[in-house]
Amino acid sequence: MADQSSSSSPAEGIALAARRAFEASQLVDPSERNIALEAIRRVLQEKKAEVLEANQKDMEAARTQVEAGKLSPTLLSRLDLSRPGKFEAMLRGISDVAALPLPTGQVTFAKELGPGLELHRVTCPIGVLLVIFEARPEVVVNIAALAIKSGNAAILKGGKESLHTSGLLSALISSALAPTPIPQTFIQSVSSRADIQGLLSQDRYIDLVMPRGGNELVTSIKNSTRIPVMGHADGICAVYVDESAREGTAVRVVVESKTDYMSACNAAETLLLHQSILPTLWPKIAAALIAASVTLKCDPPSLSALSSLSSELITPSSPEDYTTEFLGPTLAVLTVPSTAAAIQHINAHSSHHTDSIITESEASMSAWVRGLDSANVYVNASTRFADGTRYGLGTEVGISTGKTHARGPVGLEGLCIYKYVLRSKAETGSTIGDYEGKDGAGYSHKDLQWGEAPF
Amino acid sequence: MADQSSSSSPAEGIALAARRAFEASQLVDPSERNIALEAIRRVLQEKKAEVLEANQKDMEAARTQVEAGKLSPTLLSRLDLSRPGKFEAMLRGISDVAALPLPTGQVTFAKELGPGLELHRVTCPIGVLLVIFEARPEVVVNIAALAIKSGNAAILKGGKESLHTSGLLSALISSALAPTPIPQTFIQSVSSRADIQGLLSQDRYIDLVMPRGGNELVTSIKNSTRIPVMGHADGICAVYVDESAREGTAVRVVVESKTDYMSACNAAETLLLHQSILPTLWPKIAAALIAASVTLKCDPPSLSALSSLSSELITPSSPEDYTTEFLGPTLAVLTVPSTAAAIQHINAHSSHHTDSIITESEASMSAWVRGLDSANVYVNASTRFADGTRYGLGTEVGISTGKTHARGPVGLEGLCIYKYVLRSKAETGSTIGDYEGKDGAGYSHKDLQWGEAPF
Repeated sequence: MADQSSSSSPAEGIALAARRAFEASQLVDPSERNIALEAIRRVLQEKKAEVLEANQKDMEAARTQVEAGKLSPTLLSRLDLSRPGKFEAMLRGISDVAALPLPTGQVTFAKELGPGLELHRVTCPIGVLLVIFEARPEVVVNIAALAIKSGNAAILKGGKESLHTSGLLSALISSALAPTPIPQTFIQSVSSRADIQGLLSQDRYIDLVMPRGGNELVTSIKNSTRIPVMGHADGICAVYVDESAREGTAVRVVVESKTDYMSACNAAETLLLHQSILPTLWPKIAAALIAASVTLKCDPPSLSALSSLSSELITPSSPEDYTTEFLGPTLAVLTVPSTAAAIQHINAHSSHHTDSIITESEASMSAWVRGLDSANVYVNASTRFADGTRYGLGTEVGISTGKTHARGPVGLEGLCIYKYVLRSKAETGSTIGDYEGKDGAGYSHKDLQWGEAPF
Repeated sequence: MADQSSSSSPAEGIALAARRAFEASQLVDPSERNIALEAIRRVLQEKKAEVLEANQKDMEAARTQVEAGKLSPTLLSRLDLSRPGKFEAMLRGISDVAALPLPTGQVTFAKELGPGLELHRVTCPIGVLLVIFEARPEVVVNIAALAIKSGNAAILKGGKESLHTSGLLSALISSALAPTPIPQTFIQSVSSRADIQGLLSQDRYIDLVMPRGGNELVTSIKNSTRIPVMGHADGICAVYVDESAREGTAVRVVVESKTDYMSACNAAETLLLHQSILPTLWPKIAAALIAASVTLKCDPPSLSALSSLSSELITPSSPEDYTTEFLGPTLAVLTVPSTAAAIQHINAHSSHHTDSIITESEASMSAWVRGLDSANVYVNASTRFADGTRYGLGTEVGISTGKTHARGPVGLEGLCIYKYVLRSKAETGSTIGDYEGKDGAGYSHKDLQWGEAPF
């Protein structure tokens, strides 16, 4: 219909093109998705020199900004595609995604409503994704691969620092799709903030927004759209050392959770101590943390328990320390009287990301696992395990701190939803009148064997 | 901590109380949920006379409004709890929910990351629900039962017409919870629009908003909150009669889809016809619809194909008829050249709720099932099947027209999410250093048997 294909703004044009590409792609055999991924890998391999040249332009501009003090130097290394192995890792990522099992077309529920009337719930793509991310240009390739594998069309917006690289990568992906049955507008990329503002109002065509950044980005996106948002916000993770903790476990898990990679969202920021371990285990844990140059911000009981240790890294805490994502060598320490109190503190102060208990008590474990309202609830394990690859999900779309759709490390499954397919094989079709009312046969509601979708 | 328990607005107080009730309830054995449901059923049974008295107050007020032309008369019957069997049906609803399998504590993914390090993904409640609904006061009881069974705390806001009934039902539910270990503030109810505005900003404490009303309510809620919204919007459903359709199937399915219950969201509003059946099948379908007093708003080809039938119910259509939810005896009719064109029309014009094809062609079925972006995709079956009870889901929380979390008829599962539980049984706990790096053992990522959660 004519009223559907005209568009009144550039953002609407982009969103509508994505929607049409998505709809057309649903009639394409899913085996074409891996063929398209291989085509993209090949084109990027061939154009490596051009991509690195574009990347140099971005690097030069960023270097000027860093020298002027307007950009953080860590951004430079995230932007740089010419570091040894980085380009190849990006290409291998495409093959890795291609090798994963197809997340769509899977039956997750099947019932016979009556003889010859079969209901299947079948996984399918969500539709059109809008993904907003920051500096690293290889994310364009990563997200494009995940979108294609899961059958979702995607509109990508990278950081302005990677403008040349992202733009070229996106154009190359589009050109690689040209000879395939997947529409070229299946993957589109936009570069300005104005585009994003326009796209956030296209809830008719866009099904999910994925901001990959901090709290601020996620909150600002949620404030500006009716489209569902799958956000990855802060990680304020805690380790709680219970009364019955073993020394070896406590020291190993606390030290790794804090120090392995301090700017990661799954690094520990808070340490909770059962009051009974203050004179026994706590000084040993503290000594190991101090040896790793970690500043300990302690509440009065945990502070006075360290009076025998003399270090300038031992300091008193203030209330805001217990809701701070330090992302560096600082740890907030709090004493609690029980596992229940630890759970209560974490539910009220953490970001519901990943929290670990160190205990040998079955009762404490059970309360922890049931009572803690966090995406990742651990027993005697480092918070650093919270990661899609470590979980064996094959790949990671992001880590969701939301409570609906997908929570914690999100694999390809998180880019899928389902539809209910009802098929009648009866001679004259099926009506509810055949089953209900005084002449109706009644529903059988018999479970069917799950497995491959029967169509 | 003191800073967590003080609250700065009435809405924040309500939301915080719900959050605390939810958190406390997680440590209560799930078997208590059915005991609480039975207690609620018993209290309501005992207080039937009082409830009906409160309901009479609401009915009288509503009658005055209806007489003044300010309320629709159909609202009166929805409001009336004294109609024969209605109160008992409400009580039976509680027992039905109690009889359903527990939706939480189910393992949906399990992997061994290494010897003695086991990861389980376990279903759990979402947290705190805010449910907004209209006239029918028994919805309070229904939603409270679903919330308790699934372990979610709930804040309920009914229509102002059912103020007395809803308020009393809510107070009785709370009093029934008093002797149980489930906190009384697990189910709360609010009555003013101002409360709702305040609650919509409590994204720190409320996890999901469920507006049960039309498009307008859903859109206005989505515009006013950062909290995820599971909405039930319009139903613009279509039936498409393909080239190879059997006459009996086409007539039966089209007539029931349109006429069985015309104000339902799963009633058909659009009829698509393959051009080849205009001279053959279409006049027979049209005659059956006219016999059922349905007005046919036809495009030019389908209109001229009916020149032999003379009825004032046959009229020309206008473009907006194809995006209208008539909710009454009117059907928009459009001729298309192919199944692909039918799919394209529906994807662009329907509300992605429920659409059925009448066909004997495997190719058409396959294109339909894959290409249609609707929650319920049917073959030779009436659109009226789209319902949680008919699907055998046990109960229905609502029908979601969203594309994330839950889609189509939503059962108790739609009120759940999951957490990842990682437990180490190693002597000194587990760190990623045990598995990664040059000295690491590598991850095994071995599938574990699913089933009951092992804790």
